Parts: sequence; C-alpha cells; structure tokens
Amino acid sequence: MEPSQETLTTHAGTDPAPTHGYTANKEAYLRRLKRIEGQVRGIARMVDEDKYCIDILTQVSAVTKALHAVSLGLVEEHIGHCVVGAAAEPDPDLRAEAIDVKVKEATEAIGRLLR
Amino acid sequence: MEPSQETLTTHAGTDPAPTHGYTANKEAYLRRLKRIEGQVRGIARMVDEDKYCIDILTQVSAVTKALHAVSLGLVEEHIGHCVVGAAAEPDPDLRAEAIDVKVKEATEAIGRLLR
Amino acid sequence: MEPSQETLTTHAGTDPAPTHGYTANKEAYLRRLKRIEGQVRGIARMVDEDKYCIDILTQVSAVTKALHAVSLGLVEEHIGHCVVGAAAEPDPDLRAEAIDVKVKEATEAIGRLLR
Amino acid sequence: MEPSQETLTTHAGTDPAPTHGYTANKEAYLRRLKRIEGQVRGIARMVDEDKYCIDILTQVSAVTKALHAVSLGLVEEHIGHCVVGAAAEPDPDLRAEAIDVKVKEATEAIGRLLR
Repeated sequence: MEPSQETLTTHAGTDPAPTHGYTANKEAYLRRLKRIEGQVRGIARMVDEDKYCIDILTQVSAVTKALHAVSLGLVEEHIGHCVVGAAAEPDPDLRAEAIDVKVKEATEAIGRLLR
Repeated sequence: MEPSQETLTTHAGTDPAPTHGYTANKEAYLRRLKRIEGQVRGIARMVDEDKYCIDILTQVSAVTKALHAVSLGLVEEHIGHCVVGAAAEPDPDLRAEAIDVKVKEATEAIGRLLR
Repeated sequence: MEPSQETLTTHAGTDPAPTHGYTANKEAYLRRLKRIEGQVRGIARMVDEDKYCIDILTQVSAVTKALHAVSLGLVEEHIGHCVVGAAAEPDPDLRAEAIDVKVKEATEAIGRLLR
Repeated sequence: MEPSQETLTTHAGTDPAPTHGYTANKEAYLRRLKRIEGQVRGIARMVDEDKYCIDILTQVSAVTKALHAVSLGLVEEHIGHCVVGAAAEPDPDLRAEAIDVKVKEATEAIGRLLR
C-alpha cells in the first residue's frame, strides 16, 4: 500500500477547526490502521497454524512497509501543516523559534523512523 | 522490546514433531503479536482523538521496532533450524542443494526486511 | 556519529548568498563525507585482508548509520530552509503551490531513505 | 545495484584455502566498494558545488542501498559458509555450540543492519 495510491477522502469537516495536518484524512488513516491491525492478526494466525517461517517474514515485511507509508503520510502532513503553520506566525522572533521547534521535532521523528 | 529481553517460554510440546524453528516459542510469538496488535489499535485511537502527529509517529516507530524484533527472532530460528536442518541432509548432493535453497530464502527475506 | 553531537562550524560566508539550507554547514558536511569515504576504504581493506565477515558487517552498519546522520541533517536543513522559504512567499497562490512542491519533495526524499 | 544483478566473478583460487564465505567473490566485493567510495566522493562534490539538497539526498539513498546490497551478500555467504560449516562439525556437542555461536552472530549482525 503506497500513500499515493490510496484515495484519501477529505473528511467533510463539520468541526470548527481541524487541529492537525492529518485531520482532513482521519478516516483514511483509521481505515489503513484497521487494515494493518488485521494484517498483524493474520500473522498471529500464521504462527498459530505453524506456517513456514519465510512466509511469515514476508507478511511482517508487508506490515512494516504499510507502517512506513502511514509514517510518511504523517510526516508529510506535519511538515505541510505544523512547520508551515509556524512559518506563518506574524511576530518574527516567535516565528523563528516556532519554526525551530517544529523542524527539530520533525527531524527527530524521522530519525526514529530510520533507526 | 528486544528479543533477548523477553523470556521465551518453551512450549510444553505435546505435539509429535514441531515443524518450524519458531514452534518451541510459539506462545511467546503469539503474545508479542497480540501486544503489537494492541499497539496498532492504540495508534488508531490516537488518530481518532486527534493526538499530536509527532506523538503518533513515535508510537508508529515503536511498533516498527517491535516488528523488527519479531522478524529477527524468526530469522534466527530459520537459520538455526531450517538452514542447519538442510546441512544435516546425509546425501551430499541433496545437501548442497537444500542448503542453497534455504540460505537463498533467508537472504531474500532479510533483504525484504531491509527495504 | 550523531548530527547533534558534532559541532557544525558556521561557514564564514564570504559568498553573496548561501543557496541551500546546508550551505552554512558545508565544511562540516565535507568533513563527515571525507570520514565516510575513509570508512568505506577501510571496509575494502578488511575484505582484502580476509577479515571475519561479521566484523565487516559491523563496519558496513556503522557507515550506513553515518550516512543516515548526514541524510537527517540534510532533511532538517531542507525543511527549515526550503520549506520555510516557500512559506515566506508573499503571493498566497504562489505560496501554496511552492509549499506543496517543497513538502512533496521532502517527503519523497524521506521515503527513499526509509526504503 | 542488486547483488543478483552483478556477475560475481569467481576468484580463480590459487590460495590454498579460502578463509571466509566471501573470499570467492573478493574481487567483486572490492569493485563494489570502490564504486561506493566513488559515490561518496561524488556526494562530497555535490555539497561542495552547492547542489540542491534533495538531489544530494537521492545520492545518499543510492549509497545506502548499495551498502545494503553488500551487507546482504556478506550475510548470505556467512550463513552459507560459517553457519553451514559449524553444522558440519562431527562432534555433536561441539556442533550444537558452534552452530549457536554462528547463528547468534549472524542474527546480531542482521539486527545492526535493521537499526
């Protein structure tokens, strides 16, 4: 599952203000995570039914990939929403600091994904 | 969660013959996968409750790490069981081929984990 | 080698205008890449001297980590410089598009690092 | 660069006994590492010439992939040579221990690659 291949339905926002970058795609994220949960359950079933270890490993790799796709979506929305939001702060001093905080957070999160 | 930190209970084997390397640790794998399934459900809850994207990313990284630990355990048992099993084949010609197949499978599986 | 542990010397900029986020830390990046080049040469020497495969693998992992650290530094500076630069575009229509382009580029680059 | 796509020339072994799994492919490994060294130098050149950060990141990803391919090759040969070698130990007690040591080493090395 690639992030770009999934049509992310725009959440028909009746909420006054979406809080985060991913809010607009909340339903799509919940569907993906539901599917990942099902994949993990499927792996447990394979273990329980003594399936061949290599086939189990293939499924574990698929789940890891699906999680990476979710991560990338969240990173994209964090950068496009939180970082860009900080850059829109009118006070230049507060802005510089806000950007620094958001960029640092994003980079540390990406670093955790790489490890 | 590191594979080495978890006490893997040896499955009190009433089965006549465990088929795979991981069979002896089946219960431990099922517990770990249950926990991972719960972690994925927790991430969905965070999305649903509009938690901060960076905190969600941290949880996604934790699940990825837990899956890596499961993979490593399976790889270890595949090598120690299936590869070594192939090496015990008495007919030298069949043995060489059996080893080749198992080593190639293991390497391809590890390659999928790295990608 | 962690990006945060290295003191990045600010390039005493006699250039009229630094073009990219990393320009200020150019010398530090060049030093790191020099070191990585030396590490790769060291691995070749280990292969040439028939060193133990596991020790070679350990060195390969170290180089991969050092490259990840360089990547993370570049990503951080891309977000803090190129994305934030796009967000400073005065024309709102051009701005939205410029941000989109930069965020998409960053996310795709991070996606390539994860694979 | 995929390990399978490169024709590994079998080292015309005049040596009395190749010590490691990779020895037969030593020349191919040295060529690959030489190429990786050149790629790292190319990245330094890009930094020096103020190339666009995203293009540099693309090259860093390519080097990481090339290193992964080298790692996988070494892992494959370690399993096929060192682990299988341990499994050929005639004394069953020494054999079990030798296998354990080699499998554990391999798994730890793979774990370092995954991190």
